Amino acid sequence: MIKILVDAMGGDNAPAAIVEGAVKALENDKELYLILTGRQADVERELGKFSYDKTRLEIVDCPDVIDMNDIPTEAVKRKQSSLIAAYWMLKKQDDICALVTAGSTGATIAGGQLILGRIRGIKRPALCPAIPNSRGSITLLCDCGANAECKPVMLCQFAILASAYAKAGFGIDKPKVGLLNNGTEEHKGDPLHQETYKYLSQMEGINFIGNIEGRDIMLGECDVAVADGFSGNIALKSIEGCGKLVLNVLKQSFLSSLRSKIGYLFMKKAVKNMRGQLDFDKYGGALLLGLKKVVVKSHGSSKPGAITASIANAAAIYRGGLVPKVEELLEGVDFSTLIPEE
Amino acid sequence: MIKILVDAMGGDNAPAAIVEGAVKALENDKELYLILTGRQADVERELGKFSYDKTRLEIVDCPDVIDMNDIPTEAVKRKQSSLIAAYWMLKKQDDICALVTAGSTGATIAGGQLILGRIRGIKRPALCPAIPNSRGSITLLCDCGANAECKPVMLCQFAILASAYAKAGFGIDKPKVGLLNNGTEEHKGDPLHQETYKYLSQMEGINFIGNIEGRDIMLGECDVAVADGFSGNIALKSIEGCGKLVLNVLKQSFLSSLRSKIGYLFMKKAVKNMRGQLDFDKYGGALLLGLKKVVVKSHGSSKPGAITASIANAAAIYRGGLVPKVEELLEGVDFSTLIPEE
Repeated sequence: MIKILVDAMGGDNAPAAIVEGAVKALENDKELYLILTGRQADVERELGKFSYDKTRLEIVDCPDVIDMNDIPTEAVKRKQSSLIAAYWMLKKQDDICALVTAGSTGATIAGGQLILGRIRGIKRPALCPAIPNSRGSITLLCDCGANAECKPVMLCQFAILASAYAKAGFGIDKPKVGLLNNGTEEHKGDPLHQETYKYLSQMEGINFIGNIEGRDIMLGECDVAVADGFSGNIALKSIEGCGKLVLNVLKQSFLSSLRSKIGYLFMKKAVKNMRGQLDFDKYGGALLLGLKKVVVKSHGSSKPGAITASIANAAAIYRGGLVPKVEELLEGVDFSTLIPEE
Repeated sequence: MIKILVDAMGGDNAPAAIVEGAVKALENDKELYLILTGRQADVERELGKFSYDKTRLEIVDCPDVIDMNDIPTEAVKRKQSSLIAAYWMLKKQDDICALVTAGSTGATIAGGQLILGRIRGIKRPALCPAIPNSRGSITLLCDCGANAECKPVMLCQFAILASAYAKAGFGIDKPKVGLLNNGTEEHKGDPLHQETYKYLSQMEGINFIGNIEGRDIMLGECDVAVADGFSGNIALKSIEGCGKLVLNVLKQSFLSSLRSKIGYLFMKKAVKNMRGQLDFDKYGGALLLGLKKVVVKSHGSSKPGAITASIANAAAIYRGGLVPKVEELLEGVDFSTLIPEE
C-alpha cells in the first residue's frame, strides 16, 4: 500500500478538481491509499459525486486554507491548514510516502524546508518540472524557481537531485546533465556558471555533457538541465508562453476560412496529439526535490487530469526510490573537497 | 538616399544569401544605396545572377573574413575583413547610416564598442530582437546576450534603448516597459532586479509597468522586456526551441495519417500563416543598440528573406530617428542622481 497525502484545498480549482483527480488516481492504481486534507464538508460534498473504494481514501478535516497571497513563512505556522497539516503528517508518520499539492508554491517550499526537512547534506530544495522534448521524451529542469540566488554548490546538488529523479521517475540509467547557460562554450556565462561548469565536470556519478542553451531544453539535448532558479524560471515560463501563443495561433488559423475549417475536421486527431505533446501537466507537476520524502507541486491551475498525473507521478517516484537514489549520489561527492570555500 | 553597409561575407549562407537578400532590398526601396563589403570576385559572381540598379550598389573589396570561431577582441583588429572594414567606413563616413551583418555576434559587438563607439552616456551596447507576440505585434527583448553580467544602471539604459527602438522602428508612442523577472510581485528576484525595479519606477520618459514573467514576452504584456543579457538569452533561446518543437510536431501530425494529409491540403494556407507568425526573421534580426549609428545583427543562419528584412529594418529605424530618440530619452534621466553609487 502506498499512502499519499493530497492537499484537497490547494489551487484555483480546489476542492472540486483535486477530489475528482484523486478519485481517478485511486481507480487507476489499486495499491494507492489517499489521505485528503481539507474542509471535511466541502471534500465530502465533492466525493459524493463519485463512486470510489472507500477503504482506500480518508479525509483529515482542516478548517484553514492557505492562498497564493499568504506570506509563506507566516503560512507555515498555520497548522490547521490543509497544506501545513499534511506536511506535519508527512513528517511524523513513517508509512506516508508522499504529498501532492496544487497550492501556493512559496508555502509548499517553506513547509518542505521548515517542517519536513531536507535530505542530510542538501543545502536547498529545488523545483523540478518535466518538460516534453522533441525526442518524444522529457527534459528535467532543475531549479525553476525555488532559489532566485544560487551558489555553485547548490547547482551541483541540483544535478544530483534531478539525476536521481530521472532514474527513479523515468528509468533513465545515466541521465545526461547540461548546465543552462548563455552559450555552449566552456567559458560562457557569469562567474557562478563558469565555476559550476568546472565542478560539475569533476563530479562522480554525474554524466555532465557541458553547457546547453535555452533551445536545448525542448530539443532534448540532455535529460537534466541544471539552472539557477532565476533563469530556470524564465526558461520555463518562456516556453509556456510560446506554447500558449502557438495553440492560439493554430486555433485562429483553423477558424480563418471555410477551407481551413473543413481541413480541421480531417485533422482533429492530429491536432489533439499535438496538444498532448505540448501538455506539461501530463507529467504531473514539478517535484520539490531535496526533501526527506516525495513532494509534488502541481500547477495552481491544475484540472482533474493534472492532479491524477501528479498523484501517479508521486507514486512512481516513490516506487523508483527517489530519496535513496539522491543519498547514493550524494555519497559519491565530497563537497568540502570539491568546492573548498563552501 | 539612405546608404547602408552590408557585410556580404557574414553568416552560414554568405555570400550567396546576403547578395540575393541585398538585391531584393534594393528593388523594394528605391531610396536605398547599398555598399557590400566582401571578396570582390565572390560578391560579383553572386551579383551576376541578378539584374539590379547598378547606380545604387557598390562593392568594397575585403579579402579577409571573420568566422564564428575567431576571438572577437582579436577579430576587431583585422581591418581587411568584411565586417571590420565596414565598421571603419561606418565610423568615418557621415553619409553612411547603418550596417547589416549576419556574421559573428561577438565580433559585431566588439566592433561596435571599439570602432564605431557608443552613444555618449551609454555604458554598454545591448542586443535587442523583436519577438512576435499574441497581440499580433512584437515585444522587444533587451538585452538578449551582449552582457552576461549586468548592473542596475545597464538595465535602466536598456529600457531607454529599447523604448527608443519601439518608437523609431514600430511607431509605438509610449512603449510599455516590463522587467523580466521570476515573478510579477515588486519584491521578486535577486538584488540586481529588485534595485532595477526601484530605479525604473522613477525614470522620466519610461513607461514602466512592473515585473513580467517569461510567458509575458510572447503573450505581449509589454512592448519592451528589459532583461540582463544572461536571462534574456535564455528566454530568447527557450522560445526558439519551443517554436522549433512545435513546427516539428505539427509536421509529424500532418503526416501521421491519410486523414490528416487530406486535412493538410485544405489548411496549407492557415499553416503557412502560422509559420509566418512564428517567424522571428521577418522583423529583421536583432538591433545592436547603444551605438552611434544603426547596427543590425541578422541571424547567422539568415536566408535571403531575412537579409532583405534586416536591411529594410535598418532603413526604417534610421528614418524613424533611433539615435536622436535615444539621446532625447537619455537627457531626461540623471543617472548620477538616480543611482548614486554608479
